[in-house]
Parts: sequence; structure tokens; C-alpha cells
Amino acid sequence: MISFECDYNNGAHEKVLENLIKNNGAKPTPYGFDTFCERAKNRIREACGMPDAQIFFLTGGTQTNATTIDSMLYQYEGVICVGTGHINVHEAGAVEFTEHKIITLPDTQGKMEAKVLDKYLDDYMHDGNKDHAVHPGLVYITFPTEFGTLYSARELNDIYQVCQHYEIPLYIDGARLGYGLAAEGNDITLPYLARHCDVFYIGGTKIGALCGEAVVFTHQNAHKHFFSIQKQHGAVIAKGALIGLQFEALFSPLSEQSDEILYFKLSAHAIRMAMRMKDIFIRNGYEFYVDSPTNQQFVIIDNEQVDRLSCKMLFTHFGQADKHHTICRFVTSWATTEEEINELEKILESEK
Amino acid sequence: MISFECDYNNGAHEKVLENLIKNNGAKPTPYGFDTFCERAKNRIREACGMPDAQIFFLTGGTQTNATTIDSMLYQYEGVICVGTGHINVHEAGAVEFTEHKIITLPDTQGKMEAKVLDKYLDDYMHDGNKDHAVHPGLVYITFPTEFGTLYSARELNDIYQVCQHYEIPLYIDGARLGYGLAAEGNDITLPYLARHCDVFYIGGTKIGALCGEAVVFTHQNAHKHFFSIQKQHGAVIAKGALIGLQFEALFSPLSEQSDEILYFKLSAHAIRMAMRMKDIFIRNGYEFYVDSPTNQQFVIIDNEQVDRLSCKMLFTHFGQADKHHTICRFVTSWATTEEEINELEKILESEK
Amino acid sequence: MISFECDYNNGAHEKVLENLIKNNGAKPTPYGFDTFCERAKNRIREACGMPDAQIFFLTGGTQTNATTIDSMLYQYEGVICVGTGHINVHEAGAVEFTEHKIITLPDTQGKMEAKVLDKYLDDYMHDGNKDHAVHPGLVYITFPTEFGTLYSARELNDIYQVCQHYEIPLYIDGARLGYGLAAEGNDITLPYLARHCDVFYIGGTKIGALCGEAVVFTHQNAHKHFFSIQKQHGAVIAKGALIGLQFEALFSPLSEQSDEILYFKLSAHAIRMAMRMKDIFIRNGYEFYVDSPTNQQFVIIDNEQVDRLSCKMLFTHFGQADKHHTICRFVTSWATTEEEINELEKILESEK
Amino acid sequence: MISFECDYNNGAHEKVLENLIKNNGAKPTPYGFDTFCERAKNRIREACGMPDAQIFFLTGGTQTNATTIDSMLYQYEGVICVGTGHINVHEAGAVEFTEHKIITLPDTQGKMEAKVLDKYLDDYMHDGNKDHAVHPGLVYITFPTEFGTLYSARELNDIYQVCQHYEIPLYIDGARLGYGLAAEGNDITLPYLARHCDVFYIGGTKIGALCGEAVVFTHQNAHKHFFSIQKQHGAVIAKGALIGLQFEALFSPLSEQSDEILYFKLSAHAIRMAMRMKDIFIRNGYEFYVDSPTNQQFVIIDNEQVDRLSCKMLFTHFGQADKHHTICRFVTSWATTEEEINELEKILESEK
Repeated sequence: MISFECDYNNGAHEKVLENLIKNNGAKPTPYGFDTFCERAKNRIREACGMPDAQIFFLTGGTQTNATTIDSMLYQYEGVICVGTGHINVHEAGAVEFTEHKIITLPDTQGKMEAKVLDKYLDDYMHDGNKDHAVHPGLVYITFPTEFGTLYSARELNDIYQVCQHYEIPLYIDGARLGYGLAAEGNDITLPYLARHCDVFYIGGTKIGALCGEAVVFTHQNAHKHFFSIQKQHGAVIAKGALIGLQFEALFSPLSEQSDEILYFKLSAHAIRMAMRMKDIFIRNGYEFYVDSPTNQQFVIIDNEQVDRLSCKMLFTHFGQADKHHTICRFVTSWATTEEEINELEKILESEK
Repeated sequence: MISFECDYNNGAHEKVLENLIKNNGAKPTPYGFDTFCERAKNRIREACGMPDAQIFFLTGGTQTNATTIDSMLYQYEGVICVGTGHINVHEAGAVEFTEHKIITLPDTQGKMEAKVLDKYLDDYMHDGNKDHAVHPGLVYITFPTEFGTLYSARELNDIYQVCQHYEIPLYIDGARLGYGLAAEGNDITLPYLARHCDVFYIGGTKIGALCGEAVVFTHQNAHKHFFSIQKQHGAVIAKGALIGLQFEALFSPLSEQSDEILYFKLSAHAIRMAMRMKDIFIRNGYEFYVDSPTNQQFVIIDNEQVDRLSCKMLFTHFGQADKHHTICRFVTSWATTEEEINELEKILESEK
Repeated sequence: MISFECDYNNGAHEKVLENLIKNNGAKPTPYGFDTFCERAKNRIREACGMPDAQIFFLTGGTQTNATTIDSMLYQYEGVICVGTGHINVHEAGAVEFTEHKIITLPDTQGKMEAKVLDKYLDDYMHDGNKDHAVHPGLVYITFPTEFGTLYSARELNDIYQVCQHYEIPLYIDGARLGYGLAAEGNDITLPYLARHCDVFYIGGTKIGALCGEAVVFTHQNAHKHFFSIQKQHGAVIAKGALIGLQFEALFSPLSEQSDEILYFKLSAHAIRMAMRMKDIFIRNGYEFYVDSPTNQQFVIIDNEQVDRLSCKMLFTHFGQADKHHTICRFVTSWATTEEEINELEKILESEK
Repeated sequence: MISFECDYNNGAHEKVLENLIKNNGAKPTPYGFDTFCERAKNRIREACGMPDAQIFFLTGGTQTNATTIDSMLYQYEGVICVGTGHINVHEAGAVEFTEHKIITLPDTQGKMEAKVLDKYLDDYMHDGNKDHAVHPGLVYITFPTEFGTLYSARELNDIYQVCQHYEIPLYIDGARLGYGLAAEGNDITLPYLARHCDVFYIGGTKIGALCGEAVVFTHQNAHKHFFSIQKQHGAVIAKGALIGLQFEALFSPLSEQSDEILYFKLSAHAIRMAMRMKDIFIRNGYEFYVDSPTNQQFVIIDNEQVDRLSCKMLFTHFGQADKHHTICRFVTSWATTEEEINELEKILESEK
């Protein structure tokens, strides 16, 4: 049965696997202090246009968020996030587990608005009892958001201006970063993003790797004992090269003749598949919960039809649109094939 | 200068102090295992109509909330609370400090609505990814709320029905419990409240005591190692009789001829003062942010006038109503005098 | 029945209580920002010879230790303590509850030895894997120790030299500070102690107060957000004056004619009672587990006799000396009377 | 340069890698709910002789220890461990990070003695103040220990008897489990071990895998929400099949003709290499810090020689034996070759 359930029900891209196989006999220094990790970091620094960036590899998204956020906060500080933000709803309380509060703001289609953030921080600063409240110590946004939406360059800049005004760092969760960067209409590049935040992570798990996320501190601002904090979180693997080798493959040019990087190529493919899918839904008369330009499409479907479709393919029930309609999430990935989209088309047309 | 800033800028009621003085020479067993604490607990059990209630004494509200909530949750569980709830905004992240998330729901004038709670829990139970979310393990409400509003008996019953349906206990923060019970129009009695929740606390600090809150587990449902948890939280005082003696005074009948209990008498006085104050504001043409029947009144005042009034008396700037108006909080307590209310009246009339 | 069980089964000294009564009608600013607290802090600053010391008031010892230690450590740091140290054995894991490890060293009669500390830190600094270990961030000692023993001025200085060499602050738990300072043979003064550590606390609960401990940061080195951390720990009481008033009484001269401070007078009394008690035990042929010059005496008693004595007075079973003998702890306090010591003498002599 | 620094500076065994490659195109259900994980679990159940065991896969040792221990303790409980235990010294405080204390006992050559454990628990149970102490909630041992030593079947049984007597579960850290089971003189089998504890983990990282540890709850005693706790710890990877596939390979018979399991074959090889190494050291007149039958050998070497040898091969400085001698750790693994041991031999002989 074809599956559009998520973007991590697959293996590694063949070039990623090849790099693991090719170097399996090496005896790399443990804990990520090996040459493969170093090479991967240099590739990433280059792609970000940030030669001085400090980079750390972790295994998964929840772990990366909890460790990075914890490393950037004092014990009395919390992280600001929209109520629908990933860390607030889908990470089993991993941030609170590190004793930090998530301070929630209302969202607009999954996004934080600069003016809402500004209002919150302004109120906080003028609150006579602010020592009785959790101190805001970090701003967290995702690119793309939980609803697949994107910040424009201007919107990101506006948020970063607010952060800088209040001297609070900005952290961007890039679990699906490539899928955002590759989207039609997106006007943010990786270097632009890197220049407009203090730390972000590049998700590998959802884009071509078996596991692995790369945290990028943009201006030598990583905690000086980040490694110990990582260890304390159980977020260090002994054979760190496992992640370095994967990111090396993902961030290498495809060939000597080409500048194109695998990570972007894989991302672009997923977006093409998503746009074909979106187009098919539109042509078949479906409505969307939100207009997403990325690899997650949120389609409003009649409950009875949801039951029928669920027998023919896998997708996620995201929530209730109303009494009779469900918001269904359909996700493509780097591994989605044209054939799978064709099959989706056939299923939807047979529904008419 | 007269002060309506809060209800804890005073000392102890004289009868409370007398009980401390009278028994100062006793040699009570430490850590709250003394006869004064036992006597105070019996007084409270009687007032609640709960002969089997388990009762613990702590020193302050934030400590009481964090300790009680932590004792009732498994590590992967969180506590449900309205966004404006006290634990969510004014306790410096003390709940998150114990590693538990506060799951926030929208409020209606400070109150949680049973149907909003029901919807949240229903959605949670039907969420296919619920193991990736924080499990709801407790519902927290305050009586009165942060805005001085009250649940009716029916509203409380509705919330408790939802809790029981989902087998999630209900905890009521009663930092100002007496002021709620004594309010005009309130139809909840202490025994009714005790029968409609699993645990609540009776605030002493704001109603006649120097310090001290009494946590009441209504049906033998306290954690069997509550004492160790309390100790771990730094929430045990060596001379526990200090709190027991105060609660004994607060919950004793005023005289042999009278059934009236000091705690209720003090509460009723504060409400009388608050209602006089409210009436004065109304007569002088002021509007209210919310219609509060308890000892906290939220008045909307022109910003320029706020500046003038601030020179003549103390009150709290609660927030901005709009660009030109401030929400000001005026609080009475058991220690507020008729003379202070007269003085307030004079000041407000001189403003006309 | 006379009791030598502990030094906190009593009330407040009458002068402490008088200060509470006299100022009960005042309307102090909440949360410890009142004039009584300020006056008490000035008294303490004077007694310490530290005009710039930052002082905070908390309610009890466990709370004070957990809050102070947590405020001084980064998340990846732990606190060094002897294995028999109070925080390691009698505080229900309150330090670990704040996510910090207690790194234990062997003790000598309850005391940490400078050379043992030095060896540990030297090994740590030379450990190639030190980033995989908990970083030592604070040294904790008690004065007097759990066994009632004392550091000499030289021993304290040696420890502080080691701390300064490794740039790790020193914290002294002074739950029974007065009883140490007042001991025969003690060559440490309060100003000397204050000059030879970074932070310490003066215990009020065990020496004349109903509750309350005063944390003294000796050189403007308190965390800039100590108040928020204190609040987060549930360690702030609304009516902070309760503790300020008690410390004001404890640290005021006894009269205009006298420089003597109540706290030292009360301490000296407890020591006189303890030395009478010690002398009685010696004269009656008892042996001691440790030679304590302070208010806790550890006497080795035949198990059968322990049973008999337990019917005549209260004391603590501290541990097994051997199969047939128990280590019994007898404690005096500021409230112990000559009559109680006389009664002890009678009981012991009747045993012969 | 040859390296005996550790047992995790290598890749995966080729059969492990092959299983990853062969199944890379599958679309496994995420989060470990896939058929590969299920097959691997069945293999492990079979090898343990525990058809009902509950098994979970995590990525590394520190993560596994912290998550498993946290899942088995109430908030007021701690874990008992020898002072030299791995969780106490080499995991950056990951256990304390979950708010639990490690209660340390003295060790005998890295091992916990049943009688020492029994004495501790007996004292605890008779401690009148035990509610002021951390409650012992779990016993943690490692097999082999930090010093490469092993418990005999009888010793393990003795410890488990004590645990059962006090109703405290026993957890065995098996980061190097195979190397212990394969050792000469070892009389413990995997099924015996599984029957003599409540939970243990089988280390994959150090024996043939790229990453991955398998936690085995022996009798349906896993926390019912272990998955949520795992997620909260950041210890779930999206593509769980990555670990399942590796353990499937490690716990499959080598061929249809053979019952031998890869995991044991790899372990046996490392032990053969270690025994050759040990023999070479002995023949060359070296002394050992401890007599280890497993893959870690602790050799006492003159400091000057340490410097010379360090230029010729990699090994770890484990500590100071005395002023002039260092304890050096030499480690073999499944990937160590005869050639490397030959080279070691040559180097040592050239030293004579």
C-alpha cells in the first residue's frame, strides 16, 4: 500500500549508504571527533556561508531541540514558541523535562508574528512582577512550520530584529529545512537563514539520512561545554562518524562537474512530488486546511471518504475540520516516487 | 500611604499570634508530627466535613502548588490549566522546574470551562500520536481565579464530572479560598468544594496567618510518600508547629457561644471592604475589567489619572486596557480597615 | 519527659517573638523587600564584617542548600561534599532534584580534608575524559559537621586555598553555625569565616528562631537573578518580614550597654549545657563515638541500656557502633535548661 | 598507528551492514514499530530464553541507562551503585539530570558485594529518619564491571536474592555483555542472567553495531508508558528499523548449518585477542592493576615507558598507580586483528 504518512518511513539515500559502506573499515576517533565529522562540518559551513560556525551532530529532532534549548538557557529562563510549535505539542514534554518552560504565543498558520513577539516582550519588560515570571531566554520557530508554511525573508528578518532588540537569541528548528528552502516562492537561502538567527539545525533524518541532525551555532556562540551537556542528555553516540559520514554525503556536490548538493537535490524532488500531489487534489476539487508550499499537504476530506481512502493508502488524521470533515495530512519525501503519485491520482479519480 | 496592593502586606491576626505566643514554650515534635498540627488538621477536617481527609502544611502558595502537583503526576504527565492560571504566569516556572509541563487551555474570565476541558481530553484520547504528547495527569483550577471570579456549584460540578469521566484528578488552588467562599452570590460551601475535587489547598498566608497553606487530600489519595516528596522540594520546616498553631487558631470557633470560625469571619470582612470599594468606584463612574465578587477589583483607569492616584495610594498596574487606559488592581484583605476605604473614597471624590 | 533529641523541638526565643509581636501591625512590603529585612541584613553584615555582603532569607536548611547550590552551578556541574555530608544523606535528594550531582569524597570525622579535595581536583583536571564526567562547580562543607566536629582556622584556610586555586567557590552550611563559633577551642570568628568562603548560611531555625536561614554571599557574587531562582524553588514567602524580624532580633545587641548579640549568647548557652552533659557522660564512664566540642554529643551505649534510657528521656539512635552497642546522639540547644541537664545526670547516676 | 584505546573506534560488522543495505528500500513503520525490530526482538527473546520479555531499542549506553533507570524509579527514589560504577563516573551526570540520586556503595574490584548491599538496605530499613533520605528504588550493576571483572553465577544470585528480599529491582548494564559472557571462567549464560535480574541491556555499539542497545525487561515489568518516557528523554529515533536491523543481524545464527549467533562469535573473538594480549604482557613481565578475564586489560607501566609506548600505539591512561607508574587500559574488540596483537607484541619486546 502506498504511504504518505510521513517523511521518515524509509531508509537512507544510496549515496549516504555508500559513504557508510566505503568507510566502514576506518578506525575513526570516537564521540564525533573524527575526520569524517570534520569534513562534514566543513561542507555545511560552506553551504551556509559561515566559515566560523560551530557544528554538533545529534541523532534525532526531539533530542536536538531539548539539548540545544537547554544549552542556551539559564535555569530560570524559558523558550518562547507558538502554541502549535513542535516542541509544545509533539515531543512528550522533552523541553520541560530539562526544567524549562515553553512560553506560548498565538500563531498565524503555524507562524510566529514579529509584532506578537514584540508585544509579549514589551509587556514582559514592563511587568513590575517580572521576577515572579519565567524569564524569556530564547525564541524558537520552525522552518517550515508544523503546517508546512514558510516565513518570508522579510518575516524572518522582522523576528530576528525583535530578538536582537531584546537581546534574546533566535533558534530555528529545521527538521524539514531542505523542504522549506526548495519550496516554490521561498525567498530564503541557507546563508540568509544562517545570518538571521543564532542557532538552527539541519534535519538529516527526514531528508536522506538514517538518522542525524546538524546543529549550527552561527557565530561562535555555542556553550563552551556543549559536549558535556550533550552527554548529560544522553545525546552523544560513541561512533559519531555514523552521522558525520551521512552529512558528508548529503552536503557534497553531486559530481565534480556540478555544484549541486545532494541535500538540495533530494529536497527539490520531494517538493516536485508534493506539488504534483497538491495539483491532483485541486483538480479533483478538494479544499485545503492551509496553503502549504512544502512537502506536507493538509487536505479537508469528508469523513466517509476518509474511511474509504484509508483502505487504499496511508496518511495521517491531523484533526477535525468540522463534524463531518477531517483534516488529512499527506506527506512526500525524497523517497517518494512518480509511481506513488500516479497511484494517488488513480485512487482520487476513482472516487469521483 | 494607604495600600490596596495585595492581601499579604500585613502580619498575623491577633488570635493567630496569641496561639503562637501561648504555646511558645511547648516542646513540639518536629516536622509537623506534633499535637498542634494534629489539632489543626482535625479542625480543618471538621470544617470540610471530611473526617478522613489527609492534610499537610506547607509555607507558601508556589511551594504548595509545585509540591502537590509533582506528587500527583508521573514523570511523563502534565497538568492542565488555563493560560491565565497562576501556576502558568506567576510562579517563575516552579512546576516546570519539577519537569512537568503545564498544558494550557483558553479561559473565560479566568475560569476553565467544562466543555473546553472535555473537548481537549476527547481530542487527546483520539489522537493517534498521543504517546508523543505529554499525558494529561491532573486538572488545576483556582477558586477564586486570578481575576477574582468564581465558579458556581454547577460549573465546579461540571468540571469534576469531566475529570471523573477521564479518570484525571482535580486540584483546586485555594490561595484565597476564604475570599471566594465568603463572596456574595457564591453557592459553594467548603464541604461542597471538598466533595467536588481530589485535592485542594486552603491559603493561610493571605487570610490571617504569617505563612502557611493547608493541602487537603479529600479521600485518602495522598501519595504514600508525600512527606519525602515535600522534603525533596525543600518544603518541610523543622518546627512544623509554627503552621499548625496558626491553622488551629484560624479554624477554631470564635468563642464557646459561637460556631463561627475565625477564617470565615476574616474572609467575610475582606469581602465587605471589597464591596464597599467596588460600590465607591461604581458611584464615581469607573468601569471594571471584569465583574469580580471577591477581594480583588480590576478597575479601568485613564493613564493620566493612574499617575495621579499612584501618588496617593498603592495599587497594582495589572495590564493595559487600551492605549490610554490601564487595568488597575485594588485588593482588600482581612486587615483592611473601614478608615482605609473611607480614605479611598475621599481620594476618588477629589478626582471628580 | 526531657528531650535531647534535636535542637529544633522548641519555639522562638522571647526576644524574637517580641519583635514579631511589636511589629505585627506594620504593613511591610512583601517578598522580603521590607525595612525589617533590610535592618536585619545590616545587622548581619556588621556581625560578619562584610559591609557589601548580599543576604537572602529562606525558611529552612534543605531549601536553603538546594536553592543556593542550584544558583551557583551550571547545569553540567556538581557539588563536592564528603559522603557523610548533610546534603548527601539527610535531605531526601533535594540537590539531585535540581539535576545536580553530589560528588562525594571520604571524610575524616565528618570533615573534608584539603589534601583529599586537592587530589580529587588535580585528578579531575588531568582526566582525559573529563568532559564525560560531572564538572566540579562548588565545594560544600558544614560548620560544625554532622558529627559536631569543627574545622580549625587553618583547616578552613587550607580548603579555601584549594578552592581558589581551582577557581571553584566554597559554600559553608551553617545550620548550627552559632554552636560552632561558640565552642571551646574554636579559633574561627564569624568575620574570619566570611572572609574564607564565597557563600555561607546562618541557621536561625536551630538557634532561637521559629524558622529562617540567612544566606550570605560574601563579595557581591550572588546570582543576579537569585530571587527568581528562589521563587522557582518555592523558597520565597510572601510575608518575608517574618524572617527579617526574627534575624533582626537575633543579631541585635542585647542592650544599649552591651555589644553582645543574642545569637551568640544563645549559642554560648547551648554549648555550656553540652559541655556539662559531656562531662556527666565522662564522669559516668561513657565513651564517645567522636570527640565533639559542640552541641551534639555522640555517646556509645550498651544496647540494653539504650532501651532503659529510652524510657526516661528522648535521644536519637544514630547508628550501630558494634553488635552490642549503639551510637546515641544527645543534643542541647539555646532552650535547654540546667534542670534538664540535672535530670540527665540523675538518670545516668541511677544507672550505675 | 594501532589502537587499543577503546572498543568503539570502528564501524559495523559486515553482516550488520549487509542487513542495513539489503533492507534499505523497505518502508518500515517509524519509531521502532516495524517488522525488523519485531524480528530482532524475537531473536533476542530466544537467545535469552525469555519468550515474554519486553524489549526496547535505544541508541547509546548513557541514554539507555538514564532512560531505563528513570522509568523504574519514583521521583523520591534513587539507584544504588558502586562508587566506581559507570553511571556514577562517566556519564556526565545523566542520571542526576533526571532528578534521581545515585546512592554509592564501596566496590570490590569494581563489583558490588551482596553483603555490602544487604547491610546498606538493612540499615536503611531500620533508619528512624528514612523518610528524610533518598529511598533506594533500584540496584545497578555492570557485567563486566568498569575494571573488566565478572560476577560469578553465585555472586549474581546472591545479589538478586538481596534485591528480592527487599523488593527492589535489579538492573544490569550490559554495554559489554558479550565480552563478559564469552570470558574464560565465566559461568553465567545469557538465560541465567536474564532469570537473575529484572531488566538488563545488551550493548550493540561495542559489539558489532554502528549504534544501538537493547533493553530487556525480563518479566513484563516495563513501565506501561516506556515509549513516552523514551520520547521525553529524546531517546527515540524516527527510523527505529536502523537499530532493529542491526540487532537482527547480531542475533541471527551464522548459517543454516550453525546455531552460533554472530553476537557471541564476535565477543569470543575479542576475548581471544584480549587473552593473547594479556599473555604477551605477562610474558614481558608486566603487572596488572586487576586480573581481568575480559576485553579490557589494566596494565601498570612505568611513567617513562608510558611516554615511549604512547608514540607507538594508542591506549588510555586510566589513573595513577603510584608516583612513578600509570594504570594503562588496553582494549580489544570484535574488530581487533591478529596483526594488531602481533604488532603490540613486537613493540613490547622491543622495549626489553
